[in-house]
Amino acid sequence: MRTSPFIPQSASPEIIIQKSAAQWKGLIETYRSYLPVSDTTPVVTLLEGNTPLIPVPYISEQVGRGVKVFVKYDGLNPTGSFKDRGMTMAISKAKELGAQAVICASTGNTSASAAAYAKRAGMRAFVMIPDGYVALGKLAQALLYGAEVIAIDGNFDEALRIVRQLSENYPVTLVNSVNPYRLEGQKTAAFEVVDALGNAPDWLCVPVGNAGNITAYWMGFCEYHQQKYCDRLPKMMGFQAAGSAPLVAGKPILHPETLATAIRIGNPANWEKAIAVKEASLGAFNSVTDEDILDAYQILAAHEGIFCEPASAASVAGLLKLKDEVPSHGTVVCVLTGNGLKDPDSAIRVSNNAVKSVIPDLAVVAELMGF
Amino acid sequence: MRTSPFIPQSASPEIIIQKSAAQWKGLIETYRSYLPVSDTTPVVTLLEGNTPLIPVPYISEQVGRGVKVFVKYDGLNPTGSFKDRGMTMAISKAKELGAQAVICASTGNTSASAAAYAKRAGMRAFVMIPDGYVALGKLAQALLYGAEVIAIDGNFDEALRIVRQLSENYPVTLVNSVNPYRLEGQKTAAFEVVDALGNAPDWLCVPVGNAGNITAYWMGFCEYHQQKYCDRLPKMMGFQAAGSAPLVAGKPILHPETLATAIRIGNPANWEKAIAVKEASLGAFNSVTDEDILDAYQILAAHEGIFCEPASAASVAGLLKLKDEVPSHGTVVCVLTGNGLKDPDSAIRVSNNAVKSVIPDLAVVAELMGF
Repeated sequence: MRTSPFIPQSASPEIIIQKSAAQWKGLIETYRSYLPVSDTTPVVTLLEGNTPLIPVPYISEQVGRGVKVFVKYDGLNPTGSFKDRGMTMAISKAKELGAQAVICASTGNTSASAAAYAKRAGMRAFVMIPDGYVALGKLAQALLYGAEVIAIDGNFDEALRIVRQLSENYPVTLVNSVNPYRLEGQKTAAFEVVDALGNAPDWLCVPVGNAGNITAYWMGFCEYHQQKYCDRLPKMMGFQAAGSAPLVAGKPILHPETLATAIRIGNPANWEKAIAVKEASLGAFNSVTDEDILDAYQILAAHEGIFCEPASAASVAGLLKLKDEVPSHGTVVCVLTGNGLKDPDSAIRVSNNAVKSVIPDLAVVAELMGF
Repeated sequence: MRTSPFIPQSASPEIIIQKSAAQWKGLIETYRSYLPVSDTTPVVTLLEGNTPLIPVPYISEQVGRGVKVFVKYDGLNPTGSFKDRGMTMAISKAKELGAQAVICASTGNTSASAAAYAKRAGMRAFVMIPDGYVALGKLAQALLYGAEVIAIDGNFDEALRIVRQLSENYPVTLVNSVNPYRLEGQKTAAFEVVDALGNAPDWLCVPVGNAGNITAYWMGFCEYHQQKYCDRLPKMMGFQAAGSAPLVAGKPILHPETLATAIRIGNPANWEKAIAVKEASLGAFNSVTDEDILDAYQILAAHEGIFCEPASAASVAGLLKLKDEVPSHGTVVCVLTGNGLKDPDSAIRVSNNAVKSVIPDLAVVAELMGF
């Protein structure tokens, strides 16, 4: 084993050998030529993107027939979700246009990401929520970043209506998913997948809520295809929670229900775009039950060592449901949109792994462990 | 703005232009020649490492005199802390030696990391804790990964004694910090810092608990210095919480107290090594109060958009305390060891940002916002 001597500090001006490892500069710098930025755009970055594409051998074996499965673990972005990809763009463009405040109606990943990037840019960050609807724990992250949270005496639709009106009438920029720069930033995840694999995968499985991410991935794959960085395009497989599956049902769901809160959306903002993606890619929408989602959530943790949000696991649940349709020896990428640390309550609730108590005696403990 | 047409799938066998972006293969593959692994070592990896070195302009300004400050945000490792760097080595070597189970006495980041890597390797993962001492929430992550948690009717010292005895008498590998492979993996963080900066920084500020990380960073800087990848070595600045500062006091602390639980250690395992690092690097140990730590924790979130564990913020708190001693125009790297999402309770507790309730009326909301 190599030893590490404590060598003294050297004052001699020796030559430094520059290592070749290219440093990641954040997704705007890396993919600048594909993004609507100019040399004068102030880049607000936390060095988001560059998230690992992790092989998942146990899940690959479950699918069988030589299929290789990877997960794109976007929960390792700076605020813990894929939202950072869109937010670095949205906040940089807001800054470029002189904004001093941004606003969103969100209770989850969007509000955390908006707050982090806005505060880094020296802006105020407002978050609008329906009063009495959101547990404080869900807002801990945004609050620490310094978001100013306003609770409306009304429902979520009213909160959305107010933030739109505010952004139209006052100097505050809307960074909800209607902000067009969000999808531009998010499409870089597809670039990273192709850069990692050397080509597009056969299938891209993605959880679908507002359908922004499936739209953005497709934008990315198509642009890279035009550049000839890949010679094919993936089938885009969008998975919704069974109780909240408007694209599967073909109509909005009035009262969407699922424990995968990040995709509990009854009327996706990007409905038309998502349909176009499905058709152009020869892909499909399908639904997975909450039980399927939690099974996949546990498989990812206990067999692959990967802890994601329950909603993220919908992509893996969907793959396992449709596994017999994957081409033999094909390559599949499942998108994991958020970090499991965002939702520790779900981890405790579904973990059937009880703590065992015992006296501090070697033989007794060893027997308990099965030795 | 660039549009993203929905182009149809092409079956033509076009040439793929290989992008030059090198894909990160995890820290063992990347730094293989510096690590005690061979071609036959099974590499158990979640593609840990490669964490961002983020400029922190607000903190740089607080220090002043042209000093450039960066944070090494190791909370973006796969399980949310720097422990993954050591664990990919410890579990790969355990696997190489035929282990089918690992064990540690830990209530925090070590248990989560050990569980994730062990389960990915197909091993059992045991975690020993003192009964009645640990809140279930702290174990949520390890439990979901499938750790088997055993609560000892005794204190933490007894838990440590039992895991040592178990590893000596039964086929279970100890992965607590006494495992020598842990530091070997952790030293790669120093390699990444030099790879990013093109040289070593003037100061490396790091929170000190067991003093393993400060030891590992120094190993890494020294090895790179020998390779001439850097022409200098940093001053190693270790910061302990005031209520738990044995290296500052020069003697063990019997009842260490600090809210920065990850560094609440009264008798560091790497005491002698840490003293050697301080002396060889012309560095120093110093202490920061819990109030200093929480101030730095809030500054990082609200000005830089970075959410770390309270213990991580000790490095920034220490820098701000000693800012007048940093050489003008120098470069400082502060290590952030864990992700703030690990500890949402602290975020809620210290956030003085209360939620405001209001009726859903445009003018009323606008006035509340200051428009």
